Amino acid sequence: MKKSALNFLAVFILTLLGFYSHAQTGGSYAGHVHSKGYAGMDAKSDLVLYEFERRAVGDDDILIDVLYSGICHSDIHTVKGDWGGTPYPCVPGHEIVGRVSQVGKDVHKFKVGDIAGVGCMVNSCGECEYCKAGEEQYCAKGATYTYGSGEGDGYTKGGYSNNIVLKESFALKVPDNAPLDKVAPLLCAGITTYSPLRYNHVKKGDKVAVAGFGGLGHMAVQYAIAMGAEVTVFDITEDKRQVALDMGAVKYVNTKNESEMQGLNNSFNLLISTIPFSFKVEPYMAMLKVDGTMVLLGVPPRDQVPSLSTNALWGRRKIYYSLIGGIPETQEMLDYSIKNNIYPKVEVIPIQQINEAYKNVLDGKVQFRYVIDMASLK
Amino acid sequence: MKKSALNFLAVFILTLLGFYSHAQTGGSYAGHVHSKGYAGMDAKSDLVLYEFERRAVGDDDILIDVLYSGICHSDIHTVKGDWGGTPYPCVPGHEIVGRVSQVGKDVHKFKVGDIAGVGCMVNSCGECEYCKAGEEQYCAKGATYTYGSGEGDGYTKGGYSNNIVLKESFALKVPDNAPLDKVAPLLCAGITTYSPLRYNHVKKGDKVAVAGFGGLGHMAVQYAIAMGAEVTVFDITEDKRQVALDMGAVKYVNTKNESEMQGLNNSFNLLISTIPFSFKVEPYMAMLKVDGTMVLLGVPPRDQVPSLSTNALWGRRKIYYSLIGGIPETQEMLDYSIKNNIYPKVEVIPIQQINEAYKNVLDGKVQFRYVIDMASLK
Repeated sequence: MKKSALNFLAVFILTLLGFYSHAQTGGSYAGHVHSKGYAGMDAKSDLVLYEFERRAVGDDDILIDVLYSGICHSDIHTVKGDWGGTPYPCVPGHEIVGRVSQVGKDVHKFKVGDIAGVGCMVNSCGECEYCKAGEEQYCAKGATYTYGSGEGDGYTKGGYSNNIVLKESFALKVPDNAPLDKVAPLLCAGITTYSPLRYNHVKKGDKVAVAGFGGLGHMAVQYAIAMGAEVTVFDITEDKRQVALDMGAVKYVNTKNESEMQGLNNSFNLLISTIPFSFKVEPYMAMLKVDGTMVLLGVPPRDQVPSLSTNALWGRRKIYYSLIGGIPETQEMLDYSIKNNIYPKVEVIPIQQINEAYKNVLDGKVQFRYVIDMASLK
Repeated sequence: MKKSALNFLAVFILTLLGFYSHAQTGGSYAGHVHSKGYAGMDAKSDLVLYEFERRAVGDDDILIDVLYSGICHSDIHTVKGDWGGTPYPCVPGHEIVGRVSQVGKDVHKFKVGDIAGVGCMVNSCGECEYCKAGEEQYCAKGATYTYGSGEGDGYTKGGYSNNIVLKESFALKVPDNAPLDKVAPLLCAGITTYSPLRYNHVKKGDKVAVAGFGGLGHMAVQYAIAMGAEVTVFDITEDKRQVALDMGAVKYVNTKNESEMQGLNNSFNLLISTIPFSFKVEPYMAMLKVDGTMVLLGVPPRDQVPSLSTNALWGRRKIYYSLIGGIPETQEMLDYSIKNNIYPKVEVIPIQQINEAYKNVLDGKVQFRYVIDMASLK
């Protein structure tokens, strides 16, 4: 055949394949999945309804119809460009639960109709030492995050949308009978707090402090208590004192009351900080016992990164940042949470309230976690 | 008997006891041990010959005739008041080897004629969780250091002297046939570097970096190699390159050559810093692999304490200060060193050269460790 005839045949075959996929996925061109969601179009404006295409469902991909999507402070930081480098339009959302509506031919972990979860990552190189160890969040080439990471000739888009396509190996198994609105935030807030507690081998009798009692903090408190620790909670408000004590904390410290901050030096084996802005690290380091560890979670805006004097590190008092957790540990956390009935306190909202919800998070007016009921997205 | 008669009897008995002790210890009043050594009389002047009394040898004490005493950078910092709070006259020296010349009646570990070592501590509370765990350096009430700590109505005085009295439990066993001049620096430089390598479970194939290749650094290198690690050495001079390579380091980095500092990010499991002044911590943290640890050793002057941004702590990259090691681990280190023939490179000097030696340490003119031959103290 001539070259032009070959080209024609290729286009013809691709068109056929396109229509075939189109029929399967319910309305995209060339196999692409049509999606709609809410996006930030720039750093300043409110999120708005936005329609876009996702990649076609590949052989080892699944398509999930999103049921619930949690609102994480990271979503707000990203949309507002607090960390720099946000690609717009930005569809946030990395605390996703939904129902599998399509599976590629090589998918084994899921079948259509299963419930699946998606957290902060949707891909990684799979070949580096960290990926091989199931610590994909530290992938040497950089994990592909659920939104805002380069993918193909565009960027990944997250869970504030009616559906999502990803490799099955990055999706988590969720039992049908779990409370799905509450499961969603486990995919970020849950694993982010569960991982450092496991990493530090928290056990019965350990003295654990949790500084910042919000979306992350109230998960850390529940896990630490479940692991047998005596938990002290620090926050800047009186409003949450009773909630913390009801949850089983042995002590609540309102850090605005100077007197409550006294007498706590050399007290804790582990201190988990979820404080989302710059703060003085040294007073908290001094509250650690010898050999104690402070774990920083949550990422402050670029202009609010704390520093510390190495004088705070005497007595083998350690400090480091922890970032979510790997996929195997995320599944372990989900199973552990469901088995032990550990869930976030959530307020379910329709997606039309997203901008008001963002404002409330920034103003500290949400106690713990907003979750979007994606059925509201018509 | 009347009260006055009782008093007389008591004084009479005490006087007898005093004379009795005097006869045993060779020349002190009321059982005190007469000592002579070299002391700093203030922060500015040279060390000078100084005579003083030590406490009487108690039931669980031993008296050691000092044979060798290492010169540690800490001695110089203390004498010069770099950390503040130095009590004068200050007799430094906490790398001590000598021969036991007297034992209290409850002493079991030593007999007269044995060789004993003394490190940085001579006592601790013995009752806190750290003492009970054999981590006396972190004693909750503060360990009694070999010099400069409060003891009785005075201060402890160290090993730049002809003898020392201490509880046997804080003295270390040293075999007669060990090279005693080289053993002395193990009591501080040895344990300070051995302890963090053990604490971090250094094993075959680990990538370990040692920054600062002096008295501490050249011990860290030898231990890490003996434990199976691949060791990279950082220092600011070209003079030590061949020594490090001959010792078995796989790489030597002269940090003054900008190009040698490139391409080292994500390289090390453990980085031991013995850098004795303020430095930029972040570039070294970046050389750690995920989950890597930086250990700070050596104490800089008060006005040279490094700070760091928490941005350096991503990827569970940890940092902390380690302080010597407990007494059980110090014995383990001595046994390990002698068994594996790991010793410092020393230059033995008479005590009359002490002030010149201090100057050389400060000027970076001693390659590794000065050790005072105490036989020179007439």
